Amino acid sequence: MGETDPRILSKQRVGIEAASMVQDGAIVGLGSGSTAAFATRELGRRVREEGLSIVGVPTSFSASMLARELGIPIRTLDDVEHIDIAIDGADEVDPDLNLIKGGGAAHTREKVIDYLAELFIVVVDETKLVQHLGETFPVPVEVIPMAVAPVIRQLRALGGSPEVRRAVKKDGPVISDQGNFIVDVRFDAIGDPQAMEIAMNRIPGVVENGIFTGVTDIVLVGMADGSVRRIE
Amino acid sequence: MGETDPRILSKQRVGIEAASMVQDGAIVGLGSGSTAAFATRELGRRVREEGLSIVGVPTSFSASMLARELGIPIRTLDDVEHIDIAIDGADEVDPDLNLIKGGGAAHTREKVIDYLAELFIVVVDETKLVQHLGETFPVPVEVIPMAVAPVIRQLRALGGSPEVRRAVKKDGPVISDQGNFIVDVRFDAIGDPQAMEIAMNRIPGVVENGIFTGVTDIVLVGMADGSVRRIE
Repeated sequence: MGETDPRILSKQRVGIEAASMVQDGAIVGLGSGSTAAFATRELGRRVREEGLSIVGVPTSFSASMLARELGIPIRTLDDVEHIDIAIDGADEVDPDLNLIKGGGAAHTREKVIDYLAELFIVVVDETKLVQHLGETFPVPVEVIPMAVAPVIRQLRALGGSPEVRRAVKKDGPVISDQGNFIVDVRFDAIGDPQAMEIAMNRIPGVVENGIFTGVTDIVLVGMADGSVRRIE
Repeated sequence: MGETDPRILSKQRVGIEAASMVQDGAIVGLGSGSTAAFATRELGRRVREEGLSIVGVPTSFSASMLARELGIPIRTLDDVEHIDIAIDGADEVDPDLNLIKGGGAAHTREKVIDYLAELFIVVVDETKLVQHLGETFPVPVEVIPMAVAPVIRQLRALGGSPEVRRAVKKDGPVISDQGNFIVDVRFDAIGDPQAMEIAMNRIPGVVENGIFTGVTDIVLVGMADGSVRRIE
C-alpha cells in the first residue's frame, strides 16, 4: 500500500501541511478539488485521532459528502458568523496570488466561502503556477441557462473563446450545484485579472466567474522534489 | 365594462403607446410588470387584429404565460441573435433614467433581455419618478440560497437595510424563476447608482441586482391628467 505517484504525493503533502495550520475550535471552509480533499482527509484524521474540534463549511456537494464520510461536523453559512480559515485548491496561481478556479464547477460556492475566510490558504502542486492567468486554463463562468447564448457573445467581446462545458456520464451540459451551466472561456492572456473579474460579473446572466483576486493569503505549493514551497 | 381607475388607465395608455412603437418583423423583449403587461396585451391585439408579425422574448414565466395566452409567438435567447426593442416596467426611475426593478422578482431575466435590446422603452406611471433611486423602493437582489447570510452582512456594509422577501401563498421566502432568494435592500440614498450596481454584483453569491444604469433609451410616463410624457 502507500501512494507512489509523485504528483499525488505532492498534493497529499501540501494538504497535510495546510491542515496542520488549523487550530482547535476553528470554523473551516472545506475546498473542493483533489488537493483540498487531502487537507480535508487530514482534518478528519486529526478529529478522529487527536480529538481536534472543528466545524467544516463545505464549498460543494463534493466537499460536503467527503466531510460527512470523515466524521467532520459540518455547518452551513446560516449557522456561522465567520470563517476562520479556508483551504482550497486552484487551477492556476499567478505571481500576485490571483487564481483561476472552477475546474470542478464549484467556483461560485468556493468564492462565497473563500472570500469570507479570515485566512485563505490555497493548496496546489507546482504545475498550477503560471506567469499570467489564462496561460493553461480557461476561466469557468457560471451562467443561468436562459442567458447562455447572449453571455457567450459578450464573453467573446471581452476577447475570450467561450465554450459550454459538456458533461460526462450525463447527456448535454454540465449542471452546477446551483443548477446552472458552466462556460469555459479561453484567453490568450488576461492583462488585468481584477478588471476581468469585475467585467465578467457585470454581464447579465453571469452568476460568478472563476477569477479570484485580492483574497489569497498563503499558497502552499507541492514541488516535484517533494518539498512544500510557501508563497505569501 | 371599461376600466375607470385613473392609475390603471394611465398604465394602459403608456402600454398602448409603447406597443405602437413596435414595427412589423420585430423581435420584442416582453417585460413582466403590470404596465408592461398592458403593452403585451396591445401587441397581442395588433397581432390578432392587424396581422402584426413579431416574435416575443419573455423576461419571466409570467410574461411567457401572458404571451402564450395572447397568441404572440415566443422564442428563447437561444433562438434569436438580438432584440430589436424591449418594453418593460420599473419600480423607480431617476432623472438620468437609471432604474430600480425587481418588485416582481424578475429583474435578473429582465436585465439579460433589456440590456440586449437595441431600443429599451420603460413604461411607468408618474408615481415611479424619483429624484434619487432608493427614495421609495428597496433594491431587489437575487441571491443563491446558500449565501444569503453572508450576502446580507455585506449588503449592510454597503449601507443598506436588507431583508429576505417573504412569500405569500407559499411558506418561507419568495423563490425566483431561477430558484433563488430575493433580498430587498432599503437605502437612505444611493449616491452613485452605477457604482452601487457594480458593488452589489461583486458580492459572491449575488446573481443580479435590480439597479439598471446606462441602458434606458425612452421612458413613457402615464401622468395623472391622462397624458403620456416621453423622457429620453
